[in-house]
Amino acid sequence: MRFIFLLFSLFFVLNTTAQTDADVLKTIYTTSLTNGQSYQWLDHLSNQIGGRLSGSLNAERAVEYTKEELEKLGLDKVWLQPVMVPKWVRGAPEFAFIETAPGVTKTVNICALGGSIATPFGGLKAQVVEVKSFEELEALGKENIEGKIVFFNRPMQADLINTFEAYGGCSNQRYAGALEASKYGAVGVLVRSLNLRHDNFPHTGSMTYGDLSLSERIPSAAISTNHANELSSMLALNKDLKFYFSQTCQQLKDVQSYNVIGEITGSQFPNEYIIVGGHLDSWDLGDGAHDDGAGVVQSMEVLRLLKESGIKPKRSIRVVLFMNEENGLRGAKKYAEVAKQKGENHIFSLESDSGGFTPRGFSFDCSDANFNQVLTWQELFKPYLIHYFEKGYSGADVGPLKSDTNVLAGLRPDSQRYFDYHHAANDTFDAVNKRELELGAATMASLVYLFDMYGLAK
Amino acid sequence: MRFIFLLFSLFFVLNTTAQTDADVLKTIYTTSLTNGQSYQWLDHLSNQIGGRLSGSLNAERAVEYTKEELEKLGLDKVWLQPVMVPKWVRGAPEFAFIETAPGVTKTVNICALGGSIATPFGGLKAQVVEVKSFEELEALGKENIEGKIVFFNRPMQADLINTFEAYGGCSNQRYAGALEASKYGAVGVLVRSLNLRHDNFPHTGSMTYGDLSLSERIPSAAISTNHANELSSMLALNKDLKFYFSQTCQQLKDVQSYNVIGEITGSQFPNEYIIVGGHLDSWDLGDGAHDDGAGVVQSMEVLRLLKESGIKPKRSIRVVLFMNEENGLRGAKKYAEVAKQKGENHIFSLESDSGGFTPRGFSFDCSDANFNQVLTWQELFKPYLIHYFEKGYSGADVGPLKSDTNVLAGLRPDSQRYFDYHHAANDTFDAVNKRELELGAATMASLVYLFDMYGLAK
Repeated sequence: MRFIFLLFSLFFVLNTTAQTDADVLKTIYTTSLTNGQSYQWLDHLSNQIGGRLSGSLNAERAVEYTKEELEKLGLDKVWLQPVMVPKWVRGAPEFAFIETAPGVTKTVNICALGGSIATPFGGLKAQVVEVKSFEELEALGKENIEGKIVFFNRPMQADLINTFEAYGGCSNQRYAGALEASKYGAVGVLVRSLNLRHDNFPHTGSMTYGDLSLSERIPSAAISTNHANELSSMLALNKDLKFYFSQTCQQLKDVQSYNVIGEITGSQFPNEYIIVGGHLDSWDLGDGAHDDGAGVVQSMEVLRLLKESGIKPKRSIRVVLFMNEENGLRGAKKYAEVAKQKGENHIFSLESDSGGFTPRGFSFDCSDANFNQVLTWQELFKPYLIHYFEKGYSGADVGPLKSDTNVLAGLRPDSQRYFDYHHAANDTFDAVNKRELELGAATMASLVYLFDMYGLAK
Repeated sequence: MRFIFLLFSLFFVLNTTAQTDADVLKTIYTTSLTNGQSYQWLDHLSNQIGGRLSGSLNAERAVEYTKEELEKLGLDKVWLQPVMVPKWVRGAPEFAFIETAPGVTKTVNICALGGSIATPFGGLKAQVVEVKSFEELEALGKENIEGKIVFFNRPMQADLINTFEAYGGCSNQRYAGALEASKYGAVGVLVRSLNLRHDNFPHTGSMTYGDLSLSERIPSAAISTNHANELSSMLALNKDLKFYFSQTCQQLKDVQSYNVIGEITGSQFPNEYIIVGGHLDSWDLGDGAHDDGAGVVQSMEVLRLLKESGIKPKRSIRVVLFMNEENGLRGAKKYAEVAKQKGENHIFSLESDSGGFTPRGFSFDCSDANFNQVLTWQELFKPYLIHYFEKGYSGADVGPLKSDTNVLAGLRPDSQRYFDYHHAANDTFDAVNKRELELGAATMASLVYLFDMYGLAK
């Protein structure tokens, strides 16, 4: 009897070890799609907490909530990593109008850019100079700009298939528009929202004053694409029209916050770290469901899926929920600094920060040898329609972990709808599809499983 | 001077002919994304016309509108192809409730299935038998079913990546549920909506009574997934509860309608036909924006893109807007019948009827030789993230054109969200993303261009 039992056990063990990588991926995907947790977590994060700007009460609530949820998963360790973060507050809702003649006004939708100063008390009214580039600004010179509001209106390029490329081609207007316009004596800056769609949502985002002194800084706001088009048309008819806007945002002192980290400690190579993460902070206008609630819950789900699928990692797998990606990257810098101090050997760092849309693949920042190893796994992903494996940019939060050996990667979901929601009031839970989110989590977990199984290329 | 002019002309001609296929595809995609017409057409079809059930006034308005729009494109021919279509009307809005005790009721959302008869005057109230399959129905037998409402509640399988597979695994409940349940004396049928999401929308769709006599026919309705779950839970607690529903739909006499056809006649092989199409009819609950307004406007856009891109086809390219795909396929059958009568040699027939989502590729029903030729073009589509080229099902409307030589194909967009909207009141214009729709049109136009350029495999 005991002999039969032993034989049976042996068979069971052999049978278990005979499980192919394809079987493991199938289990991971099925678990995510039929018994997933990511969507419920996102529901809470979006609808019970909401927008999570660094330094806000909501950001702290998100830290507490995700720590508690990670603790429920029975990981080996869960902890908070302290980090000081900037605290910028929007203040009262912004208000703006176009004035074509005294008393003849048309209200338009704007929002302050993150990091901007307020307008003077009572608001700011001035003539508008529309430009498409910094070169145009320079050509116009101080004589045409001084005392005016500069309106940066270069639209995102619609013929680029990857919308992140279109974003990259325009984002300097938002980030450095005020810095550049101030040099020519502008009194304020308006930036066309970084949105490919024509709608009424203004899209916020980070901006910089560089080395400008306090007195040289000018208020900067985003205007919705529809209203940018309208303003541009009206300027073509009447270049003397005036634009009024009022915003009361301010930069306060840095405050204490945290990265949230959970770990399954590796059974064979505990000092080889694989991390998967997204950023816990978001802008304040929407719920931050796509940016980056999706990445947060997908990253948490990766560790849960590994456990649920019965995988006992050889290497240490961490989920890292970074604080302050949007306006400082302080959490990412802190995590990398501590990892370096402790001599932790990070071999694979995967980020999800491109929205919770149907996953298409990954972009890798790594050596050719490691990239070629990844390509040998590509076929395993074919049943899940994951086809995009390219070298390229990984992500902002894993960036500071770059080294000769660490493989950095970013999940690449379908990008077509991302900028419809990015940094705007409509980035809310209802814009995320459950299956698309779950497919992303499973795709990430599958790649993490493979890196854990095979390690770096020899 | 003239010599220089000739040299210049020669250079121009050489330069023009040196345009690679990759250049042509780039032009097609750029035109669709920056100067497209598909989204505006869909706006009109959805918001100015609306749901277009066969035989309805809206369907006739859609015939007129699309014919007029095709005429504006300056094609070589535009015409209407007459076809008799069934006319089923929904009547007054359906009403339903669960009654757990006399007077204790809970209203639920249902809709009549297309082709169903009405409930008796005043509605129908009976006990409910829940089943997951026809086998279960048979096992229960007449003694457990007679006089009751059969509730088919097999959910779509969430772990299938292609949601159309999940649909295929459940659609017999909707199509033949009443036919099967009637055999055991059921008085009505309720079918769980074919939707992977849990929400409150009932999803209609076609059903059949097969050879049942008029007196054997029983009314059949779809219930929303949330309410199906609720009914199932309540039945687990109280199998004697009753279900009430009322619907006043009816099948009228067939009426005259039309396929709408436009053609660019081929310059070299006018009797080799390439067609691209979608279906102009839709269900009546929503606007039919995804099913199949998207396919209609994308197909129209294919011909416009070819013209805008300066392509003069060697073969005859037709857009065919099929009438009555949803509940009869009469338009498709008529088109194939006429094509056969006229001896038209159809070499490539492409359908778009899977929603206006980001295109991923195509599914082909053709010979190996022709499929292998398609695979040689695959690399051209890589910049547009079009990666899915597989043999498989093409589409309902091109199906009747199957022959040894005709290549049948279906556009395959991302399928994750399709059944959230399919045949329901939320299949509306706002659920379609402009860029995703435009990418689909460009992808279709590109494949049509290649088939026109190279013809069938030798």
